[in-house]
Amino acid sequence: MDLMPDDLVERAVRACGRTPAAAARAVLEFNRAVIDSVEPAAVAVKPQIAFYEAFGCEGLRAYAETIGHARARGLLVIGDVKRNDIGSTAAAYAQAHLPGPPASPPAPLPLGEGRVRAAWPAASEFHADAITINALFGSDGVKPFLERARQSGAGLFVLVRTSNPSSAELQDLDCGGEPFYVRVAALVEEWGACDRGASGYSLVGAVAGATFPAALRRLRQAMPHAVLLVPGLGAQGGTVADVTGAFDAQGRGAIVNASRSVIYAFRDGAGGGPWQQAVRRAAESLRCELWQATHGALGTAD
Amino acid sequence: MDLMPDDLVERAVRACGRTPAAAARAVLEFNRAVIDSVEPAAVAVKPQIAFYEAFGCEGLRAYAETIGHARARGLLVIGDVKRNDIGSTAAAYAQAHLPGPPASPPAPLPLGEGRVRAAWPAASEFHADAITINALFGSDGVKPFLERARQSGAGLFVLVRTSNPSSAELQDLDCGGEPFYVRVAALVEEWGACDRGASGYSLVGAVAGATFPAALRRLRQAMPHAVLLVPGLGAQGGTVADVTGAFDAQGRGAIVNASRSVIYAFRDGAGGGPWQQAVRRAAESLRCELWQATHGALGTAD
Repeated sequence: MDLMPDDLVERAVRACGRTPAAAARAVLEFNRAVIDSVEPAAVAVKPQIAFYEAFGCEGLRAYAETIGHARARGLLVIGDVKRNDIGSTAAAYAQAHLPGPPASPPAPLPLGEGRVRAAWPAASEFHADAITINALFGSDGVKPFLERARQSGAGLFVLVRTSNPSSAELQDLDCGGEPFYVRVAALVEEWGACDRGASGYSLVGAVAGATFPAALRRLRQAMPHAVLLVPGLGAQGGTVADVTGAFDAQGRGAIVNASRSVIYAFRDGAGGGPWQQAVRRAAESLRCELWQATHGALGTAD
Repeated sequence: MDLMPDDLVERAVRACGRTPAAAARAVLEFNRAVIDSVEPAAVAVKPQIAFYEAFGCEGLRAYAETIGHARARGLLVIGDVKRNDIGSTAAAYAQAHLPGPPASPPAPLPLGEGRVRAAWPAASEFHADAITINALFGSDGVKPFLERARQSGAGLFVLVRTSNPSSAELQDLDCGGEPFYVRVAALVEEWGACDRGASGYSLVGAVAGATFPAALRRLRQAMPHAVLLVPGLGAQGGTVADVTGAFDAQGRGAIVNASRSVIYAFRDGAGGGPWQQAVRRAAESLRCELWQATHGALGTAD
């Protein structure tokens, strides 16, 4: 809340006081403007559900409406939820965050038949085109997400090597000559083996932080069929040069994510004009830098 | 929804149709009755947020009201959320799920001062007495939870060895002569070192599944200051004999959790009477079995 434009926060406080409802209102207005501003330069947005959860049910309503607005603008939505649990519980998370089969209207059968009760419709308001998940539980905590993703063509990004400073404590532990994260990477390739599209990439991708360029290059080799979701650019310290190793030889196979450096671009005071313009410029400039780093001069590749 | 008592589900459908709102209504009514039934036998309840999230904002409202009802009945609440992320995001999850300092009214200062904006109050509706977290991100993904828990005397249960069949895939990987989960256990002891109460136990506990008794005994030794939260009893296959290794020599230091075997106890058709009675009997009988397994005959220890 302390990073958003003043007038926007003041409007929400006038309407709802200093409450979670005001926060949710301000965040949603901010998000709509950010989405409209970055849309020409971005392929996807990645809302982080934690910041909505902190404002309770009101906050989560804003999360749902943010997803709706991004989809209406033609952007893909990656729900950054990092969910994880045992199989039966992972299935509930998958229902919450991923769409099901394309046409599955609730069966209009009378109550009292067990099968009808089992098919109770879940809510769709948190459904995203892809989500991030944590694989610590192993295959049976991942398969419910995979089954659900297959039904709708959604995607998964499994945490492999995260962007934070202490990620090495557990993720780099030596497991028989290889770091732990490389063992997770092997599972990611295995989980995605049956679900590869015409591109050669599977619906099981991986999160690999921009802040560890050597690990990123290694993971590009270890998971040739996984789209890499690369956070950590900008505020966390990763640079465009750091992320080039995440792309394949054709300059594909990675989604690079910048959050704070784009959405709060107006806070450095440079450029002038309305705040939305600074956000748009930051997204556009990042797009150009990334394109040049992976394809050479703009327009020389498809 | 297919496991709950018929009349309760039918009432909700009559009121709201076959919708997420009806599901939320039925679940809340069911939970209130379960909580009232198990209260004499239980020290805590552990709602699993995934099953509420599947019903969207309506479902999460039922999660919040379930917490409120359990606290009103004097039960501790363990929010089974398994949240995890990098530091700045973990802080938002901590605000969402753990109470802050005892007296922190929003400062009544005028808008426009940076410090006031930063202190925007989070919502409290998901606040539990303790939560489960995933430690894959290492220390900087855990510390925001720890700082928040310290402020209010709340507790954390870090996933160390989970109860599901495939947990061995990653958690048992050999890391320099020790399984991965024992390395996580060492971190749990370290994170809790400064926060031990008169009991000798710290506010940083650990999740260790009932389904792996040998691991459970090993973890009791490896984490002498961590309360163990032990899921997997009943429906997942763990027995009372399997969990005795989780307790210390005084029969303390563990919270044993049974979910499906208690809340759906009425479905085996034994015993007769209203469904709530079967739930109460299942909880009471489990309490006695656990007490006898850890303290000998009932009433011989405090």
